[in-house]
Amino acid sequence: MEEKNGIVLAMFGTSVVKALPGLLHVREKMVEHFPETPVRIAFTSKIIRRIWQQRSEDADFLQTHLNIPAEILNVQGPLAAIANLQDEGADSIVVQPVHIAPAEEFFDLASYVEGLNSIHTVKAQQKPFVRLVLGRPALGTYGADYPYRQDIVTAAKMLSGDAGLAVQDKTALLYMGHGNKHYPSSGVYFEFAAEMRRQYPGSLTAMATIEGSPTIDDAISLLLENRIEEVVLKPFMVTAGRHALDDMIGGKPESLKNRLEAAGFAVRPILSGLGEQDEFARIFVQHTVDAAQDAGIHLR
Amino acid sequence: MEEKNGIVLAMFGTSVVKALPGLLHVREKMVEHFPETPVRIAFTSKIIRRIWQQRSEDADFLQTHLNIPAEILNVQGPLAAIANLQDEGADSIVVQPVHIAPAEEFFDLASYVEGLNSIHTVKAQQKPFVRLVLGRPALGTYGADYPYRQDIVTAAKMLSGDAGLAVQDKTALLYMGHGNKHYPSSGVYFEFAAEMRRQYPGSLTAMATIEGSPTIDDAISLLLENRIEEVVLKPFMVTAGRHALDDMIGGKPESLKNRLEAAGFAVRPILSGLGEQDEFARIFVQHTVDAAQDAGIHLR
Amino acid sequence: MEEKNGIVLAMFGTSVVKALPGLLHVREKMVEHFPETPVRIAFTSKIIRRIWQQRSEDADFLQTHLNIPAEILNVQGPLAAIANLQDEGADSIVVQPVHIAPAEEFFDLASYVEGLNSIHTVKAQQKPFVRLVLGRPALGTYGADYPYRQDIVTAAKMLSGDAGLAVQDKTALLYMGHGNKHYPSSGVYFEFAAEMRRQYPGSLTAMATIEGSPTIDDAISLLLENRIEEVVLKPFMVTAGRHALDDMIGGKPESLKNRLEAAGFAVRPILSGLGEQDEFARIFVQHTVDAAQDAGIHLR
Amino acid sequence: MEEKNGIVLAMFGTSVVKALPGLLHVREKMVEHFPETPVRIAFTSKIIRRIWQQRSEDADFLQTHLNIPAEILNVQGPLAAIANLQDEGADSIVVQPVHIAPAEEFFDLASYVEGLNSIHTVKAQQKPFVRLVLGRPALGTYGADYPYRQDIVTAAKMLSGDAGLAVQDKTALLYMGHGNKHYPSSGVYFEFAAEMRRQYPGSLTAMATIEGSPTIDDAISLLLENRIEEVVLKPFMVTAGRHALDDMIGGKPESLKNRLEAAGFAVRPILSGLGEQDEFARIFVQHTVDAAQDAGIHLR
Repeated sequence: MEEKNGIVLAMFGTSVVKALPGLLHVREKMVEHFPETPVRIAFTSKIIRRIWQQRSEDADFLQTHLNIPAEILNVQGPLAAIANLQDEGADSIVVQPVHIAPAEEFFDLASYVEGLNSIHTVKAQQKPFVRLVLGRPALGTYGADYPYRQDIVTAAKMLSGDAGLAVQDKTALLYMGHGNKHYPSSGVYFEFAAEMRRQYPGSLTAMATIEGSPTIDDAISLLLENRIEEVVLKPFMVTAGRHALDDMIGGKPESLKNRLEAAGFAVRPILSGLGEQDEFARIFVQHTVDAAQDAGIHLR
Repeated sequence: MEEKNGIVLAMFGTSVVKALPGLLHVREKMVEHFPETPVRIAFTSKIIRRIWQQRSEDADFLQTHLNIPAEILNVQGPLAAIANLQDEGADSIVVQPVHIAPAEEFFDLASYVEGLNSIHTVKAQQKPFVRLVLGRPALGTYGADYPYRQDIVTAAKMLSGDAGLAVQDKTALLYMGHGNKHYPSSGVYFEFAAEMRRQYPGSLTAMATIEGSPTIDDAISLLLENRIEEVVLKPFMVTAGRHALDDMIGGKPESLKNRLEAAGFAVRPILSGLGEQDEFARIFVQHTVDAAQDAGIHLR
Repeated sequence: MEEKNGIVLAMFGTSVVKALPGLLHVREKMVEHFPETPVRIAFTSKIIRRIWQQRSEDADFLQTHLNIPAEILNVQGPLAAIANLQDEGADSIVVQPVHIAPAEEFFDLASYVEGLNSIHTVKAQQKPFVRLVLGRPALGTYGADYPYRQDIVTAAKMLSGDAGLAVQDKTALLYMGHGNKHYPSSGVYFEFAAEMRRQYPGSLTAMATIEGSPTIDDAISLLLENRIEEVVLKPFMVTAGRHALDDMIGGKPESLKNRLEAAGFAVRPILSGLGEQDEFARIFVQHTVDAAQDAGIHLR
Repeated sequence: MEEKNGIVLAMFGTSVVKALPGLLHVREKMVEHFPETPVRIAFTSKIIRRIWQQRSEDADFLQTHLNIPAEILNVQGPLAAIANLQDEGADSIVVQPVHIAPAEEFFDLASYVEGLNSIHTVKAQQKPFVRLVLGRPALGTYGADYPYRQDIVTAAKMLSGDAGLAVQDKTALLYMGHGNKHYPSSGVYFEFAAEMRRQYPGSLTAMATIEGSPTIDDAISLLLENRIEEVVLKPFMVTAGRHALDDMIGGKPESLKNRLEAAGFAVRPILSGLGEQDEFARIFVQHTVDAAQDAGIHLR
């Protein structure tokens, strides 16, 4: 029987209009690669979905924001995105997380997929899904099939452009990631920064996370040890959203920019998300290719 | 935090326009009882959903069927109905099966609810549902909280009107149920018919199922033993749908009407589903009340 | 890698020493068929396991009951039986229910198997089981692979000897099954009795269950309608245990024997369980063969 | 109804007799704290269980190893340990992992507990467990109730003795942990080492893992940067087992000792596992206290 399939791009989401390009660019790369497969965006954050819901009913907002895609104004959560694809006939679905690290959001999403896959019916053909699979985050996940270390190596390869921003003497590239104080996922941040330093010995790459480790203090120590004077500051996130605006360059004294300047560094912030970079966005496409291939799903 | 809730009425579905009243009447009773709670219809049959999907895009059909509610033209499956309610903010949902017996469809639906309830998240507030519960079919299900025998007694009570159709001498009421040759659920049909005979000794109630037991032969034997001459024939289903039209009164020799006439009975078919009867429809409402109450869901 | 496998025979259990032959005979047939496969008995009833546990520490009991197999004195529950087989190296296990009907106990056991099968590990070879499957009860279960109606036909075939007990005029065979007022499984009892009557038109087979339908009254009605005078009474259970002793022939007025005698029948009770009959015991062996075959488990 | 409970101490296991003290010492602390609660050891490694199984049947081994507890000779896997406790009447069980990090083994064990907890029965009292809960590893796990960072702080506090081994000038404490190249759990190792350095600024603590990050090279870099000359080398594991013997001080050139000596450091290995230290062993006891308390299990 003919397979009908689809892709759900699941991400935390953003309410910051200027941050949409990062997300939409990942979607664009996915659609370019699979022009005949429905691709749906899902925001996992209830709060952000509610903001867009209110905006979709707000005439003033709509008038002053003519270019926002309908899919964002009416953005769904992962359950509804998957279920509606299924309702339209798709029985083979890849859920691709647009996540950097395998952490809280990814494991929550994995539980969604596991729960939906646990649905069994008396007759096999009545099952809602023939195949429902989960791709892996940019920096990989556990398992021997795709060792996460290899995903870290690949991610670093795709960011040669970013490394090139810090080749000058006394200049470093500092990424600001999200992190999670309630999920022990800091390892991939430490390992990624080390891998950048390994692949690009001419540039110093440092990492600071907002909520976890490595901390801003860890990063500042590394920069001071290496006698850095200028710091190129980039979000280590798919989009330059709320966190980029507030935690990275915001006015409060604890913002990363202010902390760095207080420690004596010149700061050059770049307000773009990794999703806006073709090569990084394509990591998510490749992970979807992998998941589909392993499951025998023929995305086109 | 304020509870937002909803009800999903899940049923096999029907593509027969004339059969819609049975389903819609159950919905009506539910909305009457809970005027402030969203009530969504879900069809579990993929094939039937597809038929309505095609009709919703068919200008001719739409022109000649002006009274079909949008909710039927755009009818969703159970996963999408639940997920979209959740996406709209409902975190406490009762899934009420509009099923007669606890059989294949009901246990499939139970697996949906179980799968969705198995979704766990790192932070409790991120769970998609606070409470997602399943009501029970008209004739009940397993468990000690609501012994199915009591549900059978109640169902028989609600059908005194039907029993009244067979009070005349030599007249019997014959229900045609669906049954299932791959699901051993015949007991509730046997027990229900026996309970009707117990509650209404002045009328003889018999039962025949299309796919299981009791069989048409079982029913004919009972009628012959009791020297019945006239048979009032009613679907023992929520709607008088495809099966009623074909298997009960259809032209082929194996249709129940033709089998009965061949055996010498006069047949008086009544083409209405049990869902069209207020008292029977309210059974589903009561079961939703029970499920909500047990789960601490405050439907209004 | 070499498959190590095993069989767990799961049954409610009995504390009645005289009832053990029924259970042990099923085990015997299984071991005859698979002489090189470990076969373990598991009792699902906690109360009965506790009784045997106390007896295993009671010197008086042990002295006066020299022939009780160690496996009964130390009988385990299903979880321990499965887990200990697994601990001994068996990674492919068939759990064969020694149940008559697909009812409460069977569905509980199915949940055990489902829960154990849901255990997943980062590396596939770390999973506790390669294959853990469930056989079906004597009268089958839901699903299209082994339609339960066929299992009912087969069970009736295997009981030609029992039918032969009632060939005389005015004699009937009355089975006493367990039934369950909290689990709607009466259908298989109704259907089985009807199948016996179909296969053995020269004998009248009736069925009464202790806890459900058909009831003793149903059975007595059928016997009276057929002008029966003598009733051969047999337990429709694997063992002639507590229920046989008490509910079938016990001294209280409600016992089946007393009810029948009060209704005017002569009663000839036969105190043996179906498990003591080779052909019936082999049904469980065949179902284990089926489950193993479907799962690619090579029992020897 | 009276609660009967038990504790299962789950660990990878060891076949090295000299390494048993680490495991047994943890058990000792648990039994001291809960003298009236059964405490069972479970080894998760099939291979190691098989080695002990063979030894338990090897007369020569038994003669030359008179002091090995029966519980080790007959050691069970986690499923059998839990199931046999349950078979003995315990319906409330805490499974305490004797793991350092929340990584592959811990998440596998969590899946066991989740699978067993998913078993549901028609009647609630038939469920195998009233409460089956999982404690957390020494360095914690995800979740907001017990932030893993706090567990890291506590673990570092409990190892002041180890820090004291490196107070001399040019001396460092180097822990060798296991790590996992297929499970992204390196963060807790990085963070723990940083926390040791924070709590004990007078000693330099470094970390190297066998299979993951931080690597031996990472550790050597840190030691060289800090002009360390002598390295106190300790396993960052509960027992000084196979890995300590081989990977830490073994003869092959890649062993940590040989790598360090090749890099010019004097090495002082200490062959004891963290489980042998009272304060560290009590971490596992405290985590069991927490899990029991949260679940309302009254261990005594």
